[in-house]
Amino acid sequence: MEDFNKLAETEATSIEKLTICEEHDPESNTINQPLLKSPPVLPVNPVAIVGAKVTHIESLDYEINENDLFKQDWRSRSEVEVLQYILSKWLLAFLVGLFTGITATLINFAVENIAGYKLLAVVKYIEQKRYLMGFIYMTGANFLLTMVAAVLCVCFAPTAAGPGIPEIKAYLNGVDTPNMFGATELIVKIIGSIGAVSAGLDLGKEGPLVHIGSCIASLLGQGGTDNYRFKWRWLRYFNNDRDRRDLITCGSSSGVCAAFRAPVGGVLFALEEVATWWRSALLWRTFFSTAVVVVVLRAFMDYCISGKCGLFGKGGLIMFDVSGVSVRYQVVDIIPVAVIGVIGGILGSLYNYLLHKVLQVYNVINNKGKLQKLLLSLSVSIFTSACLYGLPFLAKCRPCDPSTLNSSFPTAGRGGKFQQFNCPKGYYNDLATLLLTTNDDAVRNLFSINTSTEFTTFTLIIFFVLYYILGLITFGIAVPSGLFLPVILMGSAYGRLLGIIMGPYTRIDQGLYAVLGAASLMAGSMRMTVSLCVIFLELTNNLLLLPITMLVLLIAKTVGDCFNPSIYDIILELKGLPFLDANPEPWMRNIKVSELVEVKPAIVTLAGIERVGRIVELLKNTTHGGFPVVDEENGATELHGLVLRAHLILVLRKKWFLQEKRRSEEWEVREKFNAIDLAERGGKIEEEILTNDEMEMYVDLHPLTNTTPYTVVESMSVAKAMVLFRQVGLRHMLVLPKHQAARVSPVVGVLTRQDLRAHNILSAFPHLKNSHGNKKRH
Amino acid sequence: MEDFNKLAETEATSIEKLTICEEHDPESNTINQPLLKSPPVLPVNPVAIVGAKVTHIESLDYEINENDLFKQDWRSRSEVEVLQYILSKWLLAFLVGLFTGITATLINFAVENIAGYKLLAVVKYIEQKRYLMGFIYMTGANFLLTMVAAVLCVCFAPTAAGPGIPEIKAYLNGVDTPNMFGATELIVKIIGSIGAVSAGLDLGKEGPLVHIGSCIASLLGQGGTDNYRFKWRWLRYFNNDRDRRDLITCGSSSGVCAAFRAPVGGVLFALEEVATWWRSALLWRTFFSTAVVVVVLRAFMDYCISGKCGLFGKGGLIMFDVSGVSVRYQVVDIIPVAVIGVIGGILGSLYNYLLHKVLQVYNVINNKGKLQKLLLSLSVSIFTSACLYGLPFLAKCRPCDPSTLNSSFPTAGRGGKFQQFNCPKGYYNDLATLLLTTNDDAVRNLFSINTSTEFTTFTLIIFFVLYYILGLITFGIAVPSGLFLPVILMGSAYGRLLGIIMGPYTRIDQGLYAVLGAASLMAGSMRMTVSLCVIFLELTNNLLLLPITMLVLLIAKTVGDCFNPSIYDIILELKGLPFLDANPEPWMRNIKVSELVEVKPAIVTLAGIERVGRIVELLKNTTHGGFPVVDEENGATELHGLVLRAHLILVLRKKWFLQEKRRSEEWEVREKFNAIDLAERGGKIEEEILTNDEMEMYVDLHPLTNTTPYTVVESMSVAKAMVLFRQVGLRHMLVLPKHQAARVSPVVGVLTRQDLRAHNILSAFPHLKNSHGNKKRH
Repeated sequence: MEDFNKLAETEATSIEKLTICEEHDPESNTINQPLLKSPPVLPVNPVAIVGAKVTHIESLDYEINENDLFKQDWRSRSEVEVLQYILSKWLLAFLVGLFTGITATLINFAVENIAGYKLLAVVKYIEQKRYLMGFIYMTGANFLLTMVAAVLCVCFAPTAAGPGIPEIKAYLNGVDTPNMFGATELIVKIIGSIGAVSAGLDLGKEGPLVHIGSCIASLLGQGGTDNYRFKWRWLRYFNNDRDRRDLITCGSSSGVCAAFRAPVGGVLFALEEVATWWRSALLWRTFFSTAVVVVVLRAFMDYCISGKCGLFGKGGLIMFDVSGVSVRYQVVDIIPVAVIGVIGGILGSLYNYLLHKVLQVYNVINNKGKLQKLLLSLSVSIFTSACLYGLPFLAKCRPCDPSTLNSSFPTAGRGGKFQQFNCPKGYYNDLATLLLTTNDDAVRNLFSINTSTEFTTFTLIIFFVLYYILGLITFGIAVPSGLFLPVILMGSAYGRLLGIIMGPYTRIDQGLYAVLGAASLMAGSMRMTVSLCVIFLELTNNLLLLPITMLVLLIAKTVGDCFNPSIYDIILELKGLPFLDANPEPWMRNIKVSELVEVKPAIVTLAGIERVGRIVELLKNTTHGGFPVVDEENGATELHGLVLRAHLILVLRKKWFLQEKRRSEEWEVREKFNAIDLAERGGKIEEEILTNDEMEMYVDLHPLTNTTPYTVVESMSVAKAMVLFRQVGLRHMLVLPKHQAARVSPVVGVLTRQDLRAHNILSAFPHLKNSHGNKKRH
Repeated sequence: MEDFNKLAETEATSIEKLTICEEHDPESNTINQPLLKSPPVLPVNPVAIVGAKVTHIESLDYEINENDLFKQDWRSRSEVEVLQYILSKWLLAFLVGLFTGITATLINFAVENIAGYKLLAVVKYIEQKRYLMGFIYMTGANFLLTMVAAVLCVCFAPTAAGPGIPEIKAYLNGVDTPNMFGATELIVKIIGSIGAVSAGLDLGKEGPLVHIGSCIASLLGQGGTDNYRFKWRWLRYFNNDRDRRDLITCGSSSGVCAAFRAPVGGVLFALEEVATWWRSALLWRTFFSTAVVVVVLRAFMDYCISGKCGLFGKGGLIMFDVSGVSVRYQVVDIIPVAVIGVIGGILGSLYNYLLHKVLQVYNVINNKGKLQKLLLSLSVSIFTSACLYGLPFLAKCRPCDPSTLNSSFPTAGRGGKFQQFNCPKGYYNDLATLLLTTNDDAVRNLFSINTSTEFTTFTLIIFFVLYYILGLITFGIAVPSGLFLPVILMGSAYGRLLGIIMGPYTRIDQGLYAVLGAASLMAGSMRMTVSLCVIFLELTNNLLLLPITMLVLLIAKTVGDCFNPSIYDIILELKGLPFLDANPEPWMRNIKVSELVEVKPAIVTLAGIERVGRIVELLKNTTHGGFPVVDEENGATELHGLVLRAHLILVLRKKWFLQEKRRSEEWEVREKFNAIDLAERGGKIEEEILTNDEMEMYVDLHPLTNTTPYTVVESMSVAKAMVLFRQVGLRHMLVLPKHQAARVSPVVGVLTRQDLRAHNILSAFPHLKNSHGNKKRH
């Protein structure tokens, strides 16, 4: 251990930036810097947001801060105020559902109309055999739409690119990615999503809708944007991380609900995939939000059904209704179902693996500058347009089924719209039917029932390969992009292919194979089970599918887990978000917290009544989010608690200084600060200007100190400490010495999220990795 | 505070029994003793299990016990053993699903056949106009069946009475009700449930199935019953409370799944209602169990469909399939839906209130002796039989609908079986149709679609009132009884009644009103939302109902919550199970843990190397589950950790004593103990016999002590301490002094579950209640 200490000392400068610092500039550590060469101290992961620019990452604080001021605030709340608090929670949940529902409808409305009229024009050119004009029109329109989305994302809100789900997941785990839930992000995400989806790119609006829901929730919770805040007194109760966390959970489940019209699925998605902490009460409120979303969607559909909304119709909502189909299967059918699951799991984890590689390459490109980012997006758009338009020429014309001629030819019918494309009358081009349409309609076509001869094997193979490639290259570009739809597209093509191959041995319809294939690929890539199951249930509207869907999901997830983590975990890792897993790794039992503390730089503490100069110096020279406060009386030291950086900055800003070294009276503090001030965050030490006289004055930190931080004893194993840290949702965990008498300081260290991450510990203690049992215990 | 201390001293003897004692004889405190007259110390709640006999209640321990021995055990686990552990977890989940599925099918098979042949015989007597014989036959059969169930419950397994869900909920919260998950309980529950349900009592098999699933899980986890254990090496990994908790969660969700054939609903039920701690990994494994259950049920149904199982058919499984119905409703229909919800909530909470009163009366009767218990059950059986047989004579005969004559008359047809009863041919008795049938069929009749004229208002009123009364008087008797079905019966009758009243103003079918009514009453009584919603979804097989079901559930739950807690919480309270709520009450912020510690008797600690005599004395005179171990060196004291009572008893049993006062060597300990020994529980100090010589010897407690117990500082608020206690799942929480130097002891107290319960704190500090904000924050 001494070696570590020595090393730590020699690298003192870099340590200051790399250890518990939670606020630090990520742009300085791009992914190609050799940060991971097993540094001697616990490293902060490189932060390389895919196509995004962030300033710093901060941990959230779910601990009840028990300093004198907060306590007073709570005690002074009357019965009426508690009631206001509860009421406003419900009101906010209602508003989150309402606005998310309205926004989702608007997006659907815009996408269906823009993409619809675009495709109608293209089809017209083709009918007139003006193929080149058609190509130019389509490529141009897609180019422009992509440009709108990409320019917005690149220039105004880099964090709006991508799905946003990993960041939300990280937020709910306690990691605050900045500029994630602002008004700019919301607007860019909405417009960008409309542009990108209408442009026919291989991406969905599902992920962005989750982000949109969370943005709405966050903005509502703080009463508007940072600049124009609606000052409602009741909102002040929501000025803490715990309540904001709950609201954003509501928002994300509303988003999923709006994307799939799956209220229960939305709740479960938030529960299974997104949320880290969960309570029964939250389940209920989330459910309320999604119920509101469903009612809003329903109301708009009632309104639009009569054709008042252009090409909207029922579009974009009930995506793949197969409720009319009676599914017949027996216990024997478990075998083909298992095959779907196994192959789906393999394909899904392969997709994860490849996407990881592609994103690493994209990171390098995106980091080169805004122009490169933009060019990357636009080239993907052109490539996509070319493939979508060009490939159908490879397919042969097929005669329309005479028995269903009236209903299925050419643009309307069972399950979707058939495309005549370059074929004579009475014939259709099956590849064009899948490619020259919106993604939603493509899925609907693939899921259609009793259409076993409509799509040839050749077509499906081309479609699958094309969308596997598009799915890989599209995700990382700088536009809002969801992962759900690309995976569903690949999966349904794969399922249908498998259905054709297994046709002679099974009674399950090929449309259902497509559904199961989509489910298996999603489980293989995203590794969700219950929520996916319910989402598929609510999408397909067919309960008889439930048992086999469950089996497919379970098998695909199990197979996928053998190879690599879920796609969201991969993205979290890529973005360097310090996500804390639910379970400690087995080897964490073999290392004590004292060992972690030893490899960190020496702890810095503040005195109960501290000189202003020293506080400023500390704040400037360290990046710690909190400092232990130690009282010294008659030579004996005693831990008073932990004071947060934000509160220290607040003291400096308000210049609440004492001339002499004395304890302050309660009224003095209360005059200067209230609990709302304390809940504010994000002040910067650089902004505070103090005179030399002031630097020599004193601050009484006692009333601002959280006097009851959670502590652990230094002999505790990291596994056990992590249970506490993660379950209670801490930001700082104080480590106390085992032998009080022998130590000078009553506190030996402070552990944060970064210190407890498996990856970081392994970097500092590589021998743990090889000891044994590196697998997760489930 | 001093007054409290003085009072505490004067009542020293009773205090010893009443404070942190977690193991104590509940039969000595029946509910009619005046225990709740605000005693000066934190009281243990009176334990009065409804119709059950328990010996003592013990808290479970989810903390990672870090003593030298356990640590060694973990370190010595190889990669293979970790793999074994994971594999066996999945294998157990599979077996739990398999056995629960088989048991559920057996119960359904038995119930459908016994009740079916019984009713056929009764109908035959009625057809022959031998009404008295019919009555005697029916009452006699029901009497005998009830007797079997009641005798078994009273004599062999008192804990098998009732649904068992509250005890499971308490177990997963960390309270171990003894004799709950044994083989006797399992067998009695299975046979008793068959008897009670076949006897036509107003109770369901759903609750018991949850208990059965949990019993199966528990027995599998420990490798068989206490007497005949299957010694499989892999099972030793499951010898801790955490893994057992996970298994029982699996078991309970499998039970719900088997009861309703609702796999997702089962998982959600466990998540929302039963489980206290939840992890993503658990979600997945639970889901796997329920998937297995569904496959098993499906396989049996495939086998039985051709009539090989007597009257079984599809009976008892898909209870109310309305998948064929297309539901039409618009936004306007929210109004009648809201009415259903509001009234359902009121009726549900009224039911909770009345049931609470009835159970209190029953408690007094049940506590008088086994004979009284038995008589109570049998009188309820006779009363039920009389009502079911007698009341139909009040109803008028109604002509069968000629258009549906072929299909609906008399015993088979749309949605259920019509009864001719005392009517001439071509007529049916609508009340008999509902009463002279199994409960499942009655529900099916009420849920039937397009039968708006089949049941008169008069019939429905009688039915509703009868089942409201029966539901109240039946639940508390000494037979296995579920709450789901009685509530569904009441609720569906209420819903249909409301449907008739609202008929002119709505387009929703009366059968759907019945479904919604049932949902509203369940939400009003049991206060579940998402899980009920999914269960109803899976029951009715109709996704279009989802949005209105959600609204009804939300409204009914909200209304119900205004009046009283959920029925399970009421039963938990009645049984005196120290259930710990998820959220601390607001007023808990105004009290410090030091205040709680002060009203408790002085803390007893052990020295690191302790005399055997003192250990024996302590164990005999206190009932604490754990003791702090304090080392003293050169006058300074230091907390070494916490040693469990079970481990002390183990030391005494193994007679691991030292002649002189010295620290033991590591090999000495390891020779004598292994981790499996330490995981054992339930030894009694009275059983250990020691000689006087031995009493003078010493024990080195260091290697057996958990050196890293979770601790809090005495100035922490109770609210904050409770977050730690509840989130991490503690049994003992050590309270450290704020000012180390000023105190003699390094630990000022130990808090347990009982100390942190809101009710107990309020008894000791009545002024907190009136301060403000006594409501829960959601």
